Amino acid sequence: MTSLPLQIAVIGGASCTPQQEKLAFEVGSEIARRGAVLLCGGRGGVMEAAARGAREAGGRTVGILPGESPETSPPNPHIELAIHTGIGQARNQVLVLSARGVVGVGGSWGTLTEIGLALKHRIPVVLLESWQLEPPDGRPEPLLMSAQTPTEAVELVVAAAEERSQ
Amino acid sequence: MTSLPLQIAVIGGASCTPQQEKLAFEVGSEIARRGAVLLCGGRGGVMEAAARGAREAGGRTVGILPGESPETSPPNPHIELAIHTGIGQARNQVLVLSARGVVGVGGSWGTLTEIGLALKHRIPVVLLESWQLEPPDGRPEPLLMSAQTPTEAVELVVAAAEERSQ
Amino acid sequence: MTSLPLQIAVIGGASCTPQQEKLAFEVGSEIARRGAVLLCGGRGGVMEAAARGAREAGGRTVGILPGESPETSPPNPHIELAIHTGIGQARNQVLVLSARGVVGVGGSWGTLTEIGLALKHRIPVVLLESWQLEPPDGRPEPLLMSAQTPTEAVELVVAAAEERSQ
Amino acid sequence: MTSLPLQIAVIGGASCTPQQEKLAFEVGSEIARRGAVLLCGGRGGVMEAAARGAREAGGRTVGILPGESPETSPPNPHIELAIHTGIGQARNQVLVLSARGVVGVGGSWGTLTEIGLALKHRIPVVLLESWQLEPPDGRPEPLLMSAQTPTEAVELVVAAAEERSQ
Repeated sequence: MTSLPLQIAVIGGASCTPQQEKLAFEVGSEIARRGAVLLCGGRGGVMEAAARGAREAGGRTVGILPGESPETSPPNPHIELAIHTGIGQARNQVLVLSARGVVGVGGSWGTLTEIGLALKHRIPVVLLESWQLEPPDGRPEPLLMSAQTPTEAVELVVAAAEERSQ
Repeated sequence: MTSLPLQIAVIGGASCTPQQEKLAFEVGSEIARRGAVLLCGGRGGVMEAAARGAREAGGRTVGILPGESPETSPPNPHIELAIHTGIGQARNQVLVLSARGVVGVGGSWGTLTEIGLALKHRIPVVLLESWQLEPPDGRPEPLLMSAQTPTEAVELVVAAAEERSQ
Repeated sequence: MTSLPLQIAVIGGASCTPQQEKLAFEVGSEIARRGAVLLCGGRGGVMEAAARGAREAGGRTVGILPGESPETSPPNPHIELAIHTGIGQARNQVLVLSARGVVGVGGSWGTLTEIGLALKHRIPVVLLESWQLEPPDGRPEPLLMSAQTPTEAVELVVAAAEERSQ
Repeated sequence: MTSLPLQIAVIGGASCTPQQEKLAFEVGSEIARRGAVLLCGGRGGVMEAAARGAREAGGRTVGILPGESPETSPPNPHIELAIHTGIGQARNQVLVLSARGVVGVGGSWGTLTEIGLALKHRIPVVLLESWQLEPPDGRPEPLLMSAQTPTEAVELVVAAAEERSQ
């Protein structure tokens, strides 16, 4: 397994603010610069900006899409490899499980779903301008982190992913 | 469609506090008293307490399980009909989509996933001693409600579910 | 587990011949007469005829549907409990895994998928006017049976399901 | 869409004969030589031989796995990008829908499932030493083809995939 490049997912809404788009682009760039493969949900907004960032930095991008075909569920133009699942939002599970770590930018309900799925499966999550989550039982969650900048987010997620892989 | 009984999901952790167990039991009872079918994830904790409440009140219970068979993913003893999905936590989508409304008790990461999935699909959610969620964009979410008591939770979710069905 | 009624799936195309419809109706009736719960894909053709047969004989019916809601993926009128999966044809896995045995009537490509899934998971299958399947390796498959009549099909599947449950 | 390389799936059992292994290896090589990306179920047997063939010919390989993590569901050593679905055999749907055409070698029950899923979704399938399938209704299926050699199989599937993409 150690010879495969690290796979990192970027999650976030299909619609987002210009600021979130900028953050996602930089997260994608930084993931590519570190030689990791960027996974995302394959659609617009945060997903598209992150994929664009990764591609422009020479990286590889994978889109894991909810629909059944490129015709009904087209990937954004920066997706290099499109995985069509045909399982709707349950594709969030495929996205999260295929990654060693997750970076979340902004926060839709879909993003919340992915955060929950990642932590349920003990996959580290780093958030940027996203949900503020305090578990009702008050127990701190060491795998849930916040970052102030895209570079810090990618540093944190790569460190956590590499620790997990050991 | 109108002749089918209402299907309401109860979500919550496989481990929970005695207080959450009591709340879940009462939510299940109240769902049954209103003639609705209780759906849950089929396992222990909140799921088991809610199913027990529904059965003891004469209601029907359905467990939607993550595993492939009763041998590897046994339903709790209060489940009357067991649906084995074999899709792991993606079964949360099946649970949520099969319900017209969702009541959440307590809050694990799996529960967070279900809340996100329900709202993504515009299915109303009522929470009891659960996550406090404020969307990062500050927009209020009318389909996400809190209740103080099990009776209030079921009243709210049934009203929202019936409104949605019209 | 032993106290739950047996759950039997009927599989077959959403469009079918009048003869297949008649067979499916009788299979559904016979399943209900034996006190088992009928599961099916919830749609038309064989699925609808089998559900109608079960309901008219006083039995219970569950439809496991591909779509996300009753509005976009309506169950046939003989479905008593509708499970909406939102995972498309992957719902065939949920249908098959939730049953202790499967009866197939007629044969579409979807039916072939379900036969393969059932046998992959070692769930017995009885076919009526359906695919003739000979494994390329020539090994006989004891869990794949043919029947000449609906009554024989249900007898065979119930016997195989009960043997498997022991 | 047109700028993305063609994605072709190879399906077949996790255990296979030496002859099937040889065929799968050559199918994988031929897919790579044509510049297409090879998708498979990521495990052993036919899947491993096809991935090895593609990699040795300089191509790219994607494994779409049933399990939740590399630890519990390890990809074979020739998989370059591993997609972990956590949805069990329902991952066959993800595999088939992500491909523009499918080549089947040998024939297990899982392979039969994939053939059914592909044709249900109108994705062309070419078989080599695999199931002999005659639809019970006697209607010929133009999207289901047989080949005598790996080269012929890949020629047929690429032609059918390109025709479908137009």
